Amino acid sequence: MGRLTRRQRVVRFSLGEAPRTREETMAAEEPLEIRLGGRPFSVTMRTPGDDFDLVGGFLVGEGVVSAAEHLLSLRFCAGEDEDGRQTFNVVEAQLGPGATAPDPSLDRHVYTTSSCGICGTASIDAVAKTSRFALDPERGRVELPVLLQLPETLRAGQALFGKTGGVHAAGLFSTAGELLCLREDVGRHNAVDKVVGWALREGRLPLADTVLQVSGRASFELVQKAWLAGIPVLSAVSAPSSLAVELAQRAGMTLAGFSRGRTVNVYSHPERILSAEEGTARDHPVLDHSVRVRGSAAGRD
Amino acid sequence: MGRLTRRQRVVRFSLGEAPRTREETMAAEEPLEIRLGGRPFSVTMRTPGDDFDLVGGFLVGEGVVSAAEHLLSLRFCAGEDEDGRQTFNVVEAQLGPGATAPDPSLDRHVYTTSSCGICGTASIDAVAKTSRFALDPERGRVELPVLLQLPETLRAGQALFGKTGGVHAAGLFSTAGELLCLREDVGRHNAVDKVVGWALREGRLPLADTVLQVSGRASFELVQKAWLAGIPVLSAVSAPSSLAVELAQRAGMTLAGFSRGRTVNVYSHPERILSAEEGTARDHPVLDHSVRVRGSAAGRD
Repeated sequence: MGRLTRRQRVVRFSLGEAPRTREETMAAEEPLEIRLGGRPFSVTMRTPGDDFDLVGGFLVGEGVVSAAEHLLSLRFCAGEDEDGRQTFNVVEAQLGPGATAPDPSLDRHVYTTSSCGICGTASIDAVAKTSRFALDPERGRVELPVLLQLPETLRAGQALFGKTGGVHAAGLFSTAGELLCLREDVGRHNAVDKVVGWALREGRLPLADTVLQVSGRASFELVQKAWLAGIPVLSAVSAPSSLAVELAQRAGMTLAGFSRGRTVNVYSHPERILSAEEGTARDHPVLDHSVRVRGSAAGRD
Repeated sequence: MGRLTRRQRVVRFSLGEAPRTREETMAAEEPLEIRLGGRPFSVTMRTPGDDFDLVGGFLVGEGVVSAAEHLLSLRFCAGEDEDGRQTFNVVEAQLGPGATAPDPSLDRHVYTTSSCGICGTASIDAVAKTSRFALDPERGRVELPVLLQLPETLRAGQALFGKTGGVHAAGLFSTAGELLCLREDVGRHNAVDKVVGWALREGRLPLADTVLQVSGRASFELVQKAWLAGIPVLSAVSAPSSLAVELAQRAGMTLAGFSRGRTVNVYSHPERILSAEEGTARDHPVLDHSVRVRGSAAGRD
């Protein structure tokens, strides 16, 4: 996969030393245009590779498909460079029965996600309306030591990051901590899309007993993507945003952040985190909108 | 500015300890819809605040405006929440003479940047066609110790990051290292847009003698935004992508990455970095497309 990285000459400047030229390996970045029915639907800057999974996962996150059979075909099309070579940067998706074709009105194309410009609540409503999977509060329970181990496993599996230091990663794990799928990309949304697209292709949606671990922050859009794939637990190495927390609360999703080896913050639905110690979170009904009695209904109320 | 942050109850889990509930401060995230002539143009998830600057800077980065007078007006419009309160999440921009209204065709709306799906080279060509400012190789020269100091100054000025640990920052500096404008946002592109929008409003475009320091990675889109604002030096704390380097080479922009206190990598046009040591980069013509004799023409060849 030579397209994943590029060799690049750089000049390294150090205080008190003469500048030196050396070769470095960089993460590759190329545009990918996604077409539906011959019409451009979205363009994303991504690291080439697993492109069909990227498209499949992206369409899951937009609420267009939720099962492998909703996608009749994926193929590279058009796209030749100035020398007439196929660039593999344009993918045409053909939707099958059961897919929800996006609204063809002009306005739809303005939104690359389900977010809308009125307010956060309206954005959350839009995602809730799009989501096909309710998150079962009884699924996705994970032991604290397992959850805390995931960032290290993710990091250890990042081949590209080790070479380039410049990519994001998303890893899908079983609740027992087994790594199911790891993807890296210059765009963190793309890494998640590639993981979800893999699961779509494998017929695994909804991903009811899994944890999605991401290398960076947890944004509204990552929570949206996890929800639409049916993932009950999203864990980030860095901070979530306020709207990500609100969406996770609404989704019935457990959202964890600042997962740093021995400690982790849980922003919504902490009842899925199983701690050996006394006084676990589900005995302390303190989180707004997020505390449930064991066995209560799923989170779309 | 209460809208910049939110208080949030979280459960903190630690190995070997009982979970504890506490309050944390989080970076706020809300959608912002940008309208041109009454029609939605783009929606971005952003940290509220400096919204007119965000819109102005975004329009600079898209090649729509390049001087303050190209924007006749900016106002909050529409957008009421369920209680009928103005949400301040929809901004209508009215373009004046000299602005380049975006192509109203449907396809235009697919692209949130000038990137297109054919190949990286075509994306670069699209940005080059859009750019209004050539970067002068004689402007933006910066001493190495000044450049190396910028990440620390940026970090020290990040009020929001200190509170939340969860936001990106962009700082515009003079080539003498003076901080001109610092903005923080949950989205790194937004932080850059807010800085550029400030400069637009202040009548400072093109920003010929400045350095833009960003807290994270350097993507294609950040190089695009810097170029369209006329910024000759972009420095990132983390890695650039391969297409970011290619675009910077084409733009005649100095692109630095991994700026870590005593060392920094320069990926294009190192001749602007002034090192006290012998053997500076401009004496070693080794970088593809990027080495110029002092005094040569600007970088749009």
